[in-house]
Amino acid sequence: MASGKVMDPENLNENVKKTVYAVRGELYLRASELQKEGKKIIFTNVGNPHALGQKPLTFPRQVMALCQAPFLMDDPHVGLLFPADAIAKAKHYLSMTSGGVGAYSDSRGLPGVRQEVANFILQRDGYPSDPENIFLTDGASKGVAQVLNALIRDEKDGVLVPIPQYPLYSATIQLLGGTLVPYYLTEEENWGMSINELRRSVTEARRKGICVRGLVFINPGNPTGQCLTEKNLGELIEFCIQERIVLMADEVYQQNVYQDERPFISARKVLMGMGPPASEALELVSFHTVSKGFLGECGQRGGYFEMTNFHPKTVDELYKVSSIALSPNVSGQIMMGLMVNPPKPGDISYPQYEAESKAISLSLRKRAHIMTDGFNACENVVCNFTEGAMYSFPQVKLPQAAVAAAKKAGKAPDVFYCLRLLEATGISTVPGSGFGQKEGTFHVRTTILPSEKDMPGIMESFKKFNQDFMAQYADAKSKL
Amino acid sequence: MASGKVMDPENLNENVKKTVYAVRGELYLRASELQKEGKKIIFTNVGNPHALGQKPLTFPRQVMALCQAPFLMDDPHVGLLFPADAIAKAKHYLSMTSGGVGAYSDSRGLPGVRQEVANFILQRDGYPSDPENIFLTDGASKGVAQVLNALIRDEKDGVLVPIPQYPLYSATIQLLGGTLVPYYLTEEENWGMSINELRRSVTEARRKGICVRGLVFINPGNPTGQCLTEKNLGELIEFCIQERIVLMADEVYQQNVYQDERPFISARKVLMGMGPPASEALELVSFHTVSKGFLGECGQRGGYFEMTNFHPKTVDELYKVSSIALSPNVSGQIMMGLMVNPPKPGDISYPQYEAESKAISLSLRKRAHIMTDGFNACENVVCNFTEGAMYSFPQVKLPQAAVAAAKKAGKAPDVFYCLRLLEATGISTVPGSGFGQKEGTFHVRTTILPSEKDMPGIMESFKKFNQDFMAQYADAKSKL
Repeated sequence: MASGKVMDPENLNENVKKTVYAVRGELYLRASELQKEGKKIIFTNVGNPHALGQKPLTFPRQVMALCQAPFLMDDPHVGLLFPADAIAKAKHYLSMTSGGVGAYSDSRGLPGVRQEVANFILQRDGYPSDPENIFLTDGASKGVAQVLNALIRDEKDGVLVPIPQYPLYSATIQLLGGTLVPYYLTEEENWGMSINELRRSVTEARRKGICVRGLVFINPGNPTGQCLTEKNLGELIEFCIQERIVLMADEVYQQNVYQDERPFISARKVLMGMGPPASEALELVSFHTVSKGFLGECGQRGGYFEMTNFHPKTVDELYKVSSIALSPNVSGQIMMGLMVNPPKPGDISYPQYEAESKAISLSLRKRAHIMTDGFNACENVVCNFTEGAMYSFPQVKLPQAAVAAAKKAGKAPDVFYCLRLLEATGISTVPGSGFGQKEGTFHVRTTILPSEKDMPGIMESFKKFNQDFMAQYADAKSKL
Repeated sequence: MASGKVMDPENLNENVKKTVYAVRGELYLRASELQKEGKKIIFTNVGNPHALGQKPLTFPRQVMALCQAPFLMDDPHVGLLFPADAIAKAKHYLSMTSGGVGAYSDSRGLPGVRQEVANFILQRDGYPSDPENIFLTDGASKGVAQVLNALIRDEKDGVLVPIPQYPLYSATIQLLGGTLVPYYLTEEENWGMSINELRRSVTEARRKGICVRGLVFINPGNPTGQCLTEKNLGELIEFCIQERIVLMADEVYQQNVYQDERPFISARKVLMGMGPPASEALELVSFHTVSKGFLGECGQRGGYFEMTNFHPKTVDELYKVSSIALSPNVSGQIMMGLMVNPPKPGDISYPQYEAESKAISLSLRKRAHIMTDGFNACENVVCNFTEGAMYSFPQVKLPQAAVAAAKKAGKAPDVFYCLRLLEATGISTVPGSGFGQKEGTFHVRTTILPSEKDMPGIMESFKKFNQDFMAQYADAKSKL
């Protein structure tokens, strides 16, 4: 029944109504309710390291503090609290600004930081990068939205998105009124990508009258964690050139790699390595962030995207849209500078920075194993190893009786399972349906972020819950 | 000729192509070019106080620094650099977070800060406010975009926007594919708003098949500076209730008022004061920010919007959209807390906070006068007093010959004038056409932000340029 309101929930932008984002959806809202009622909740629904006890690195935070309060550096006592290299670094970043962190910067971000990002890319890949093609954003998500907004002209424009995917993509495409074109990753092949599957997906979409304009891939993957090889990336690039598709490389987890067989290699490096004509033919957008890696600075909102081989007027159009919100937050931009231009051997703070960052990286690697092994030790649960990123995405083989009970409760089966897990253990996850999954399979996404200290207890908790759940809903046969 | 690119500038989202945002448009880009060539530029194109020498207030920045580097508070020397109340305040805000400023917060912002915003509203207006209806955002602009995105369903949905307006509104409405419905302010009546003009505008729009859903007003006005009376606001509210329109109150300049006849009064206060049924009938969204006032913390990106009388499910939909980008930057949220919950009499830092803020407010008031008087002393220039906000918006009566020269140069007349002003004096302004103006009139927007020290020189510079320009293009008659 109509409420009489102008903005009645039925009378909103249809795309807003249709949009779904499960990472802070039903499970999270239920977990928050329970938390308010006093239940202890372990939030493993989002990659938010500091919320689970990971400490920020010291040096970057010293510099950030000095940038917020530059007058500290006029005080003779400043050296008692801050090392000389943090003081120098703060002055370095402040000199890039016109008036400090409280002034709007260039709409694409401080030119000085963009230069440092370009230097980082050159150092990482061996190929030069142009700061004029680099945009700093309030987190990578805003950059993704901006590029998709320019790309999607109407509902006939499609963007290829891996299934399972991080639902920023499905939500944003829906919000922009475009069409999501799914391509399925192969769980049995370590969540591998297949060019045949991409071809199938594109053919099917075109048959339906969709103009496929973009292809998103996440490397390392979210929620799936797989790391792509140089060969994979080469094939992807050739495919996009052939099919005239813009390639969007979500590489925000490039510093979260937990095996040595497939180290991170950027799409841009592979592209440049192919030489002309390919290296000049593909329109590539690459995304990165301060939120992940070992910094884990989610709350600062520092991201960038780099455009390769884009028409200069298109870059101008993206600049124009950036300018409407004037500028990304300057403090977050400085954190981006600090990420791509860290302390070097010989710097006062280098040993501490090295020690802190290595400890976190090693611990994440360890926890990737603990969690994978823990899930694989559970009945009816199989879990691919978390090669990279921050998540574990086990497959739970739900018995028929559980599927039926879920249906009766009006819930998708994996939502049902995750709600029961939450009520029993306080572990707040995101059901696989939030990311997309092959029909008939069910998954759960957690993060590998709970501390090493807490993790064994959490896995025990999960194991017990799962055991009880499987016993409760065991297939009739197995109960005999 | 087609470039062969997938994202050829012709093949982008039409709404992106059509969007214009003059504040960082042609004049700004030309000024930036000249600056790179070594010319001294005075940027008065955007309300960016710190870029023109205004200092941040000390206490908030002390707290922000400690929030970035909480480990400082473990150091016995911390009291040498930070007063006890800043330390306590930092602990206060950090206790609201789950893991400090590097962790994503609730998608609507830290509940603790939203409570402080609600307290501020109660104290300001005398009516209670619910934190559940308050959303913190990365600057007020993002909040405006979010609300408009939900409101605008298709190109037939219209939003009333004052002319002249701050072009965030025209640009965002275009980007979202809606229709801007202009209502003209009356320059001769101090940029006053007229209900008759609103009625005319709505009638005209409806005649064209537009469904008018929203009404934006900016109080104090941008670029026009006028402050609305309680009567004005009452009429506006009644009009919106009658016509079933959502009222969007851009009140970001509420702490920038330079006369005493019309102090700031919030739309919400007037609405609540009307009592039921009106006080429950109007859907009102109110916007505020840390960017203006005396803090001027543009680069931090801290804003909020408050929804009054919205359907709870609509609030949920807006929450859902917020959740896709996970959370606004936490540091900016803390700055919002610091703004609405400043030092109080008795606090150690209160005298300094009072002195610093009063100095800035008094100086802005002084500069509002200097600038208005300066413009009014120029030939063919008339300028309404800047009652509030941060801008001066003089009308320049361009001689016919100048209009002809502009046409010959392929420029709008006020763009032509502003470019010449820039080349001659380095003063970078925004032409009135960027904000909208009555046909046949020409305006220039500058800010009142150049320092008191610099301002006389700037006004002299302008006066001389204008004199020379008017002499060059004098009407034939007056040359006799």
